[in-house]
Amino acid sequence: MGTEQRFCSLADVRTFVLDALRATGTSPESAQAVTEALTEASLRGVDSHGIRLLIHYVKAVSYGRVNPTPQLSFAQSSRSTGVVNGDNGFGHYASYFAMDRAIDLARESGISAVSVINSSHFGAAGCYVLRAASQGLAALGTCNSDSFVLPHDGIKPFHGTNPLAFAAPVRGERPFLMDMATSIVPWNRVLDLRMKNLPLPPEVAVDERGEPTLDAKKSAALLPLGGVQYGYKGAALGSVAEVLSAVMTGMGHCSQLLAMTGPDLSTPRRLGHFFVVIDPLRFLPAELYEAGMNAYLTDLRSQPARAGKQVMAPGDREWKVQAQRRGHGIPVTESLEREFASLAKQLCVQPLRFGCIHG
Amino acid sequence: MGTEQRFCSLADVRTFVLDALRATGTSPESAQAVTEALTEASLRGVDSHGIRLLIHYVKAVSYGRVNPTPQLSFAQSSRSTGVVNGDNGFGHYASYFAMDRAIDLARESGISAVSVINSSHFGAAGCYVLRAASQGLAALGTCNSDSFVLPHDGIKPFHGTNPLAFAAPVRGERPFLMDMATSIVPWNRVLDLRMKNLPLPPEVAVDERGEPTLDAKKSAALLPLGGVQYGYKGAALGSVAEVLSAVMTGMGHCSQLLAMTGPDLSTPRRLGHFFVVIDPLRFLPAELYEAGMNAYLTDLRSQPARAGKQVMAPGDREWKVQAQRRGHGIPVTESLEREFASLAKQLCVQPLRFGCIHG
Repeated sequence: MGTEQRFCSLADVRTFVLDALRATGTSPESAQAVTEALTEASLRGVDSHGIRLLIHYVKAVSYGRVNPTPQLSFAQSSRSTGVVNGDNGFGHYASYFAMDRAIDLARESGISAVSVINSSHFGAAGCYVLRAASQGLAALGTCNSDSFVLPHDGIKPFHGTNPLAFAAPVRGERPFLMDMATSIVPWNRVLDLRMKNLPLPPEVAVDERGEPTLDAKKSAALLPLGGVQYGYKGAALGSVAEVLSAVMTGMGHCSQLLAMTGPDLSTPRRLGHFFVVIDPLRFLPAELYEAGMNAYLTDLRSQPARAGKQVMAPGDREWKVQAQRRGHGIPVTESLEREFASLAKQLCVQPLRFGCIHG
Repeated sequence: MGTEQRFCSLADVRTFVLDALRATGTSPESAQAVTEALTEASLRGVDSHGIRLLIHYVKAVSYGRVNPTPQLSFAQSSRSTGVVNGDNGFGHYASYFAMDRAIDLARESGISAVSVINSSHFGAAGCYVLRAASQGLAALGTCNSDSFVLPHDGIKPFHGTNPLAFAAPVRGERPFLMDMATSIVPWNRVLDLRMKNLPLPPEVAVDERGEPTLDAKKSAALLPLGGVQYGYKGAALGSVAEVLSAVMTGMGHCSQLLAMTGPDLSTPRRLGHFFVVIDPLRFLPAELYEAGMNAYLTDLRSQPARAGKQVMAPGDREWKVQAQRRGHGIPVTESLEREFASLAKQLCVQPLRFGCIHG
């Protein structure tokens, strides 16, 4: 079934992803940004937005959708805001670049917002807000995407899975991290269950007529967070992502975007992203911020839990997986291993090395 | 059952709420702010956060929890940020004040954030972000609250219903408005069904042991948005509200707060709020923003719907109710009518007038 997996060291995965992207003619800076975003996501256990995307990205460059050598530009529009033009390159490159500008502005004026125009898929939204958190700042990030999710009371997919990500620094620990799609489950969850011939959980997806289905093979769209009855909440969150990353960037909204998976892989998709960075120390002294965050997280994590469960703070699961994978390596499914092997041949790069984990 | 209701004009409701607050010794500015927030929420159909709260607020002032004559102060901490000290007065007064400061700062520098410390319950979060939207700006607002909601995988209430509100201007229309608790339903929904001896919908609340219950009388806490299985998303959103409005304000987090309903009604609760204001026109020209928003909303509203339903944009339901209530007046349940009559006697103010709707 292609569900067996072997493990690779982070260093080997990085080398392979970078080599493959470079072989497509992607510039060093852009390839480096994509590599960082994909390997970091895989390391945190966000496999849907991890190294498996390399296969798609290579196609997107090869067919011309993604500009391999973008010239990024930043137009500051006020003391605390600006717009990055992604020049139709990889969204990861434009997003790290935008986040770095936003970090600089927020250090100066306490809060900043930087939008990204003419961009493409940026992988896991968490990557960019984490860059701010690693520098002592809180951040919010979002992106639009093509139609996968029913609007509330609708029967046809309209919104994308429109992620919302938020991170904040925690002294002596990995950052607080929320990185979530505004659908109940990601589309990849449906594809995974479809492949395994397993039923869907109730009320996460609908069939062609917009009716909830347990049949992964018949599922045609996702329900927004909240499901059939309370989906107006998830749909509203998806709408907010749309207003910030499509309307306020002047890019197309969900239903106007080319589908990520094609068939058109040669026309730039012109996605938008939106990032906000906040300096907590403009609101209270560092000792109070650190003590307050610590007290909140300690209290949250010590809450009584259901049998066999543990109450976790946002990000805890990801950091736990990251610690494991730093030790054991990044898992690569048998099917992805085959795809990577074939990609290596196609691009004439060293194949991904397996089994020798450096931690 | 106290569910019969009569109608009052907006003007009469305003007069009554303002008179009652003034009679408690609340300053004109503060009473005006509370009146505006409560009547606007009732007008939009957000009855849980509307004029029914007057009964509670009068108690909160009378017992000393809320300072009736607060001296608000604003300490600007950078070009785009600052902190409002609410002086333990009404949260509505401090929040409108904070939002006005944030609006001024965002006009200057494109985006701003203003926190509020030493505050109290602020009613509906939507009120404050709508003030920004009415002036052509987008805004985000949030607040912490005492424990009502299970953490994901937890069995004991921890987070408050921690609302997230977002508004953005729409040319020629009422603003885009999301104003949602991060629980599936509000606690008042449970209380309402309890009073009516009706069962709860599945998986919205839990009993004393943390087990989902359909019995409104046995419900002891709410589930986060996403329910038992996907509640990590709602819980993460509640956590973000907590980080912004409790940790970053230096106020207590959920489990550290005095319960809104008492028994202690004499000690200030020291709530925190957090507001962000964004000027869309720092990201694109007005024509493009307006056209993009219009295209998005038109597309969303024209999506095919389930039988008997209609796909709505965030806020559409509220603006529809507002139009109806501007015509027919604001409904007051029989039980609230009795409480208002008794309040009028207690405070020696003119009772609320019924039946004469000026629209």
